[in-house]
Amino acid sequence: MRDILDAVASGDLSPAEAEARLAGYATTEAGRFDAARERRRGIPEAVLADGKTPAEVASMATAALETTGRALVTRADDAHVDAVTGALPAGATVDHDERARTLVVHAADFDPPSIDARVAVVTAGTSDAAVAGEAAALAQAVGATVERVDDVGVAHLGRVVDHLDTLRAADVAVVAAGREGALPTVVAGLIDTPVVAVPVSTGYGYGGEGESALLSMLQSCTVLSVVNVDAGFTAGAQAGLIARAVADARSE
Amino acid sequence: MRDILDAVASGDLSPAEAEARLAGYATTEAGRFDAARERRRGIPEAVLADGKTPAEVASMATAALETTGRALVTRADDAHVDAVTGALPAGATVDHDERARTLVVHAADFDPPSIDARVAVVTAGTSDAAVAGEAAALAQAVGATVERVDDVGVAHLGRVVDHLDTLRAADVAVVAAGREGALPTVVAGLIDTPVVAVPVSTGYGYGGEGESALLSMLQSCTVLSVVNVDAGFTAGAQAGLIARAVADARSE
Amino acid sequence: MRDILDAVASGDLSPAEAEARLAGYATTEAGRFDAARERRRGIPEAVLADGKTPAEVASMATAALETTGRALVTRADDAHVDAVTGALPAGATVDHDERARTLVVHAADFDPPSIDARVAVVTAGTSDAAVAGEAAALAQAVGATVERVDDVGVAHLGRVVDHLDTLRAADVAVVAAGREGALPTVVAGLIDTPVVAVPVSTGYGYGGEGESALLSMLQSCTVLSVVNVDAGFTAGAQAGLIARAVADARSE
Amino acid sequence: MRDILDAVASGDLSPAEAEARLAGYATTEAGRFDAARERRRGIPEAVLADGKTPAEVASMATAALETTGRALVTRADDAHVDAVTGALPAGATVDHDERARTLVVHAADFDPPSIDARVAVVTAGTSDAAVAGEAAALAQAVGATVERVDDVGVAHLGRVVDHLDTLRAADVAVVAAGREGALPTVVAGLIDTPVVAVPVSTGYGYGGEGESALLSMLQSCTVLSVVNVDAGFTAGAQAGLIARAVADARSE
Amino acid sequence: MRDILDAVASGDLSPAEAEARLAGYATTEAGRFDAARERRRGIPEAVLADGKTPAEVASMATAALETTGRALVTRADDAHVDAVTGALPAGATVDHDERARTLVVHAADFDPPSIDARVAVVTAGTSDAAVAGEAAALAQAVGATVERVDDVGVAHLGRVVDHLDTLRAADVAVVAAGREGALPTVVAGLIDTPVVAVPVSTGYGYGGEGESALLSMLQSCTVLSVVNVDAGFTAGAQAGLIARAVADARSE
Amino acid sequence: MRDILDAVASGDLSPAEAEARLAGYATTEAGRFDAARERRRGIPEAVLADGKTPAEVASMATAALETTGRALVTRADDAHVDAVTGALPAGATVDHDERARTLVVHAADFDPPSIDARVAVVTAGTSDAAVAGEAAALAQAVGATVERVDDVGVAHLGRVVDHLDTLRAADVAVVAAGREGALPTVVAGLIDTPVVAVPVSTGYGYGGEGESALLSMLQSCTVLSVVNVDAGFTAGAQAGLIARAVADARSE
Amino acid sequence: MRDILDAVASGDLSPAEAEARLAGYATTEAGRFDAARERRRGIPEAVLADGKTPAEVASMATAALETTGRALVTRADDAHVDAVTGALPAGATVDHDERARTLVVHAADFDPPSIDARVAVVTAGTSDAAVAGEAAALAQAVGATVERVDDVGVAHLGRVVDHLDTLRAADVAVVAAGREGALPTVVAGLIDTPVVAVPVSTGYGYGGEGESALLSMLQSCTVLSVVNVDAGFTAGAQAGLIARAVADARSE
Amino acid sequence: MRDILDAVASGDLSPAEAEARLAGYATTEAGRFDAARERRRGIPEAVLADGKTPAEVASMATAALETTGRALVTRADDAHVDAVTGALPAGATVDHDERARTLVVHAADFDPPSIDARVAVVTAGTSDAAVAGEAAALAQAVGATVERVDDVGVAHLGRVVDHLDTLRAADVAVVAAGREGALPTVVAGLIDTPVVAVPVSTGYGYGGEGESALLSMLQSCTVLSVVNVDAGFTAGAQAGLIARAVADARSE
Repeated sequence: MRDILDAVASGDLSPAEAEARLAGYATTEAGRFDAARERRRGIPEAVLADGKTPAEVASMATAALETTGRALVTRADDAHVDAVTGALPAGATVDHDERARTLVVHAADFDPPSIDARVAVVTAGTSDAAVAGEAAALAQAVGATVERVDDVGVAHLGRVVDHLDTLRAADVAVVAAGREGALPTVVAGLIDTPVVAVPVSTGYGYGGEGESALLSMLQSCTVLSVVNVDAGFTAGAQAGLIARAVADARSE
Repeated sequence: MRDILDAVASGDLSPAEAEARLAGYATTEAGRFDAARERRRGIPEAVLADGKTPAEVASMATAALETTGRALVTRADDAHVDAVTGALPAGATVDHDERARTLVVHAADFDPPSIDARVAVVTAGTSDAAVAGEAAALAQAVGATVERVDDVGVAHLGRVVDHLDTLRAADVAVVAAGREGALPTVVAGLIDTPVVAVPVSTGYGYGGEGESALLSMLQSCTVLSVVNVDAGFTAGAQAGLIARAVADARSE
Repeated sequence: MRDILDAVASGDLSPAEAEARLAGYATTEAGRFDAARERRRGIPEAVLADGKTPAEVASMATAALETTGRALVTRADDAHVDAVTGALPAGATVDHDERARTLVVHAADFDPPSIDARVAVVTAGTSDAAVAGEAAALAQAVGATVERVDDVGVAHLGRVVDHLDTLRAADVAVVAAGREGALPTVVAGLIDTPVVAVPVSTGYGYGGEGESALLSMLQSCTVLSVVNVDAGFTAGAQAGLIARAVADARSE
Repeated sequence: MRDILDAVASGDLSPAEAEARLAGYATTEAGRFDAARERRRGIPEAVLADGKTPAEVASMATAALETTGRALVTRADDAHVDAVTGALPAGATVDHDERARTLVVHAADFDPPSIDARVAVVTAGTSDAAVAGEAAALAQAVGATVERVDDVGVAHLGRVVDHLDTLRAADVAVVAAGREGALPTVVAGLIDTPVVAVPVSTGYGYGGEGESALLSMLQSCTVLSVVNVDAGFTAGAQAGLIARAVADARSE
Repeated sequence: MRDILDAVASGDLSPAEAEARLAGYATTEAGRFDAARERRRGIPEAVLADGKTPAEVASMATAALETTGRALVTRADDAHVDAVTGALPAGATVDHDERARTLVVHAADFDPPSIDARVAVVTAGTSDAAVAGEAAALAQAVGATVERVDDVGVAHLGRVVDHLDTLRAADVAVVAAGREGALPTVVAGLIDTPVVAVPVSTGYGYGGEGESALLSMLQSCTVLSVVNVDAGFTAGAQAGLIARAVADARSE
Repeated sequence: MRDILDAVASGDLSPAEAEARLAGYATTEAGRFDAARERRRGIPEAVLADGKTPAEVASMATAALETTGRALVTRADDAHVDAVTGALPAGATVDHDERARTLVVHAADFDPPSIDARVAVVTAGTSDAAVAGEAAALAQAVGATVERVDDVGVAHLGRVVDHLDTLRAADVAVVAAGREGALPTVVAGLIDTPVVAVPVSTGYGYGGEGESALLSMLQSCTVLSVVNVDAGFTAGAQAGLIARAVADARSE
Repeated sequence: MRDILDAVASGDLSPAEAEARLAGYATTEAGRFDAARERRRGIPEAVLADGKTPAEVASMATAALETTGRALVTRADDAHVDAVTGALPAGATVDHDERARTLVVHAADFDPPSIDARVAVVTAGTSDAAVAGEAAALAQAVGATVERVDDVGVAHLGRVVDHLDTLRAADVAVVAAGREGALPTVVAGLIDTPVVAVPVSTGYGYGGEGESALLSMLQSCTVLSVVNVDAGFTAGAQAGLIARAVADARSE
Repeated sequence: MRDILDAVASGDLSPAEAEARLAGYATTEAGRFDAARERRRGIPEAVLADGKTPAEVASMATAALETTGRALVTRADDAHVDAVTGALPAGATVDHDERARTLVVHAADFDPPSIDARVAVVTAGTSDAAVAGEAAALAQAVGATVERVDDVGVAHLGRVVDHLDTLRAADVAVVAAGREGALPTVVAGLIDTPVVAVPVSTGYGYGGEGESALLSMLQSCTVLSVVNVDAGFTAGAQAGLIARAVADARSE
């Protein structure tokens, strides 16, 4: 602790980062940012923009940037994007994925991690793109190489078969699907890569808020594990943890 | 009505059948048998053995035989089978499908219908056999030719593809599946035959009483229609109605 | 494939249609349009306007028109209608059903299919009209003759009895009902035509989002099959598949 | 209170009845019998046999007989019937309805009430008979004349129409139905008598424990009120309260 | 029928009323108004304003007025009220209950029914007022005398006890309650008048959309019958049917 | 730790109790007994007999007795009682409450706690007695004085009012009710003592497994807190914690 | 009563307060304010602003102030705050907690209660702050000392352990948590203070409206009691009742 | 295929194994055994004994043994164990885990796989042992080293902290918990190993069939993925797939 305080005294460390290192979080007007999560689990904490004002998101993203060197914002609308972009320190770079609604910000001196592992992110249709994009952003933030396989829904079986080589080359696959949620079962029946299934709330009528897809995945006659409805963040982070375990083994 | 009463007087018609023709049902100790259903809809009424005593089932099956020339018993256990078999009039024939738990009885002079139409009955796995067998029995009772395609679950996609010719040659298909219930969606994506999907209560844990399969079929991203969980009778009867509509058109 | 490419080279085929024939879908800004569905199943793919911007709908409808000769847009509001109408190529014709919220567009040289089969579309009340209209549009797109029987809810039994001739003359009937959803059961008890029941989300209070109607139809004491709540598209398409099976038989 | 105690002292009143009059209940080994209910609401309290031992039921029925002059036992099996019958005081009469599983016991000097009102009790099918029988027993216990209309399910509409005169002549109707529960809606659409609907747990698969019938009745597009699944007791008692209100008015 | 047509020819009957008498409904732009309901069941049909435009409501109310002499509009907001008021024919009178959101319109020559029966309408709290007001309006439309007992929730038991005389003097009581829905059970335990319970969607958190109140009423340890959540119309109409049965008996 | 081991060496402490003190649990064939719970929270751990064999229960009860000086067994049937009784060491005393299905065993030298606080345990009816008895046993085990108020269900309001003095004299009240679960709300509206409500699974039909009572208590319009369905143990333990907090304050 | 009326006559008591004392509530345009609640249970009644207009809230708050000397407004937005503030009589003081959305108003001569007891209010994260703030306001209104322990969610176990001394010093703890709702279980496992758990609706996807947190708390393997989702008011009031029971004992 | 047939002809291959290799399954009286699963996914297919007769299980286990060299039987009772043991060929070895109810059979010449990876299997309490045992059996069958960490439920936080080294040394952890299901969240917050959570149906009352634990795990505020309730097989197989991916990387 003395080292940290010395560094603050000497100006080598900002008070915000010092607080983050000592207390495990950075305090902002909009709440606390869990800066210690990345150190505890190796997964960057994200700022969930949905339900927060643009100013709150910008404030938490800035705290993240100061304390961990980067910020990952999910479910951001245009106003959130503008607020974050407008609040960046000099030299920071921004990557905005409109469909995934994610915003990845790196401080000028941030050195992004890179690990020797591949994550496949698979969608059944266009409406799964946002959730899959969030998963992809997380896997990339962990440092994995991400391969996208899109629009391979089970109504046209030939499409997923065309991509078997990509799926088999991955160390872990995230498969997103709404409606009846059959795609993860079909994919997991074709490969021996671990599959993390993520149900998407794109159904309609009875069971249409993703319950049908969730239940299908929990009941799958193949082997897979599941995250909550629309939980692209969790699916990507879980795939990232698996990818890193593989990469660590690969580099032993 | 006078004709019917004359026939009773002359002994050409049993009182039971006379009641059935006039009132639309036959009265037994165990309740009433809806003898008029077949005339109204062209689908034979079945005696649901589950929850009835062997004596009750035998009594209702006999009433069916007397009034319509045949009896169809569903969900029959061994005691039901023995009771019905023991109560048959001379010359009646019995067909017992142990797996489907159905019992088809024809009076000596019964002339079973035969129509020029094909019904495919498809199962994902062994545990769907009882429900599918019930559906097949109904379709056969309507007079259709039934083709079985078994054990083609989506965990091994190659199997269902091997049977595409049979499926495409059918006028209508019944597809039974439990667990995640994906098979009807996969089948309906491969053929342009109408598909009637029947969810089976063979799952486990959360959603395992068939809800998961039912929801999947209602949410299917292809086109199909659905009956209730384990409703093999209804699926087979609906397929029979469609098959007869096709056969009628074929014979115009 | 060479033929297709030659035709593109010679200008006989647009690149969009060539892509649709080869890949099975047309790519637009707003996502992919599944142009191959019609060839796989004989049912035209529809563009679901609800949840898309007018521009996205217009873009996907144009892709549909270019690759399949027609476009079917469902759940369209006025802005969607204006956008699609404004984007049409010369000679295309538009048919907008305000109550059903459907938009049917035909290219100048499109030759709509016509089959020798009748589909009855039945409603319990005014509030079922939108769902029934969607079903009717699908059945017409398949080429069937559609007969409407409206406002025959079970609170006034005499009304449905007045239409028995129309119902019996149909090869298949779609019956839409909300609230307690009893109409399909009553209709199916009166005729031997196959009935596809569609629950409508017009109830209120407990079970009012269509669950009550859906459960009633799944539990029906007559024979019928069911689609999801408000799934007019699916009901109409399933009726269309049955109608075509009948028409094919009729023309053998 | 002094009068009661004097009567006990003189032997004109048993201690059990004295307790019932003073405290509102009679204490037995098996729990307390709410002897005051009948005085509070005019509906006899019933002993629910299901879940109690034969000895407990006999003990509570005896307490009821001693304190109110009669006992009404519901959901009784053969052992319960034997135990109650064996424990009766001299002169008591027993009426056992096997299908309804009810047991009505009157003390030798009990003078059953009789009111000038009619209650119709209607069933869709054989499987509704137990619940309907329980309702009928309650209405009779209140003193009303009960008319039964059985097996008039909506799969055969003509049957219920045959009984319209009986239904219209009643002051109130109890209508019991399982599966899709459509009968109360159809009946209430045909008459202007108040209808109390009682859902029966005779469905199967999804929604088959009576939920489907309950929801249908709550969502009915006609006017009716509802009791819980299988609540024949409550339906009969509510009909009895309405019948007595009518009879009171008739005798004013 | 000839009489009706003659009356139209002579101008004694408007074509709208003639259609209503012959067909059972009046056709408007906004859908059909079920003019025959009142004749079938003695309960006026209401126009549910919620979800309709002001113009649609005004159009249906006018049709009701022309064909039945009155119009009852429920769940009306200010715009609905203005539209209906602005569209009235000369001499019509309007009664608008702001809290109940009902609008009762009588034609100049309409003679409202009056029956010799009392309906008590009881609320637990202020938030039940709208639903109770709708029930009161229906009971009044049937012609009954309505007594209101308000704000007698079970958190303060003394209040309901203060009104026992009023409750006991009624021929039937409607009791509305949200949250835990205990009031109908408490009221029904205190009187021998029939109670129709109506759950109100004024809870919060889990079970707060009225499910908790609905379940409580279905499970009540006293005798009562229930209508759907917020179904003030149905509760009032059912009470009206009971009140009329009593009044008819009273006037025999 | 050394002290404990010395005591074992000298024979002053059994190895079982030494393990319990050091590891926090005692190991038996039937699983581990959490001996540390009492020290952590001041609530004795109970052995849940339901689902265990008599031998397993006896083994765990013996472990409890050896390590904490007492054993509390819940949901015990006759075989469990016999097994525990047969396995007791010399001098141990047993208290078996048949209705509550609890078994309280004290070692010869056990000095039961006694605190200066009163817990009222209230039931709506006979069927709540088992759950209430379990709650009472826990409160007594903590050392509180327990007052029972039984059979005061809301169908007869006068009864609960008769016991207000007892309820007001308590420091905390546990109120158990099934069916519609209204009693805790009524009680909490009458007193300012904290109320812990426990729903009982004694309903029937829809919501009858205690959901209705649970929802009512969660939605109560008065102030109370709730435990899970049939959780007499938890209700009694929570009341015990509150009673001890009060007793501690009283003795300060 | 005469005293009250005399005081009104002499001007010592306002008519509003007189009504409140006599009738138990104060009548306003916006409904009735339950002024007697505080006297019955010792918990101040609150005005729930959500769903009311600013004018209605101001009117009810004024009634509260006049009759009880204070007003507690919950779930207030800015417009509610402005309306209440603008309507205050001279000398009244206002305390507005923006995050908790509460507004505490004291009349000039109001003497707030103070009791010798401590309530800990604990949150898992920032999104639990509003619910916890409401609970804290209630506990303070009862007069207890409130200690806040914030942001100690189970994803970082060390944080809650840092606050054990504060938690153990409290007489009762309110613990608020959303998502998986594990915090109350973890806290209750560490201390012997009674814990009132309040689930917060801050989850997402399946079970995200607080059901998951509610179920977890009901199923907790430790001892705690629960209030409904987001019921900060009830949790704080229940903690207040417990705190007062402790304080009363402390002052005996 | 010719090679296989030659081997059958020469007696080097049994017809059963030949069928399994060619068709992908082995046919038995009791249904088909999916012998190809292991080749497709590297996870051995298991025979689920629950719901099958001892003879059926023995027959399928024998088929498994003949075609894949081993058999894994889950949820086996004593009769199943006896039947399988009695039907074994010479030299086969059996490993029966009574608590996990698994039976692992190896043919005399079977060479079990062994991979360089560690799977931790963690339980909250004794009642999770069966599900965890099933998971452990699967992970071992894949060849991983399994470490058990038992009885570390969150009611005693210190226990899980004692095992952090074991948990951190694992490549993947399976964490089983019932009741409130908090353990996987707590574990996943402490380590950066991927966690597969498995809910166990050991709760009680509302949400007690594992729904509460399932929802908690889906809503976890840390990162983990989930399988269905009691799905020890799936959890162990998913952990096995992850372990093998790690082992493959380790051996590159």
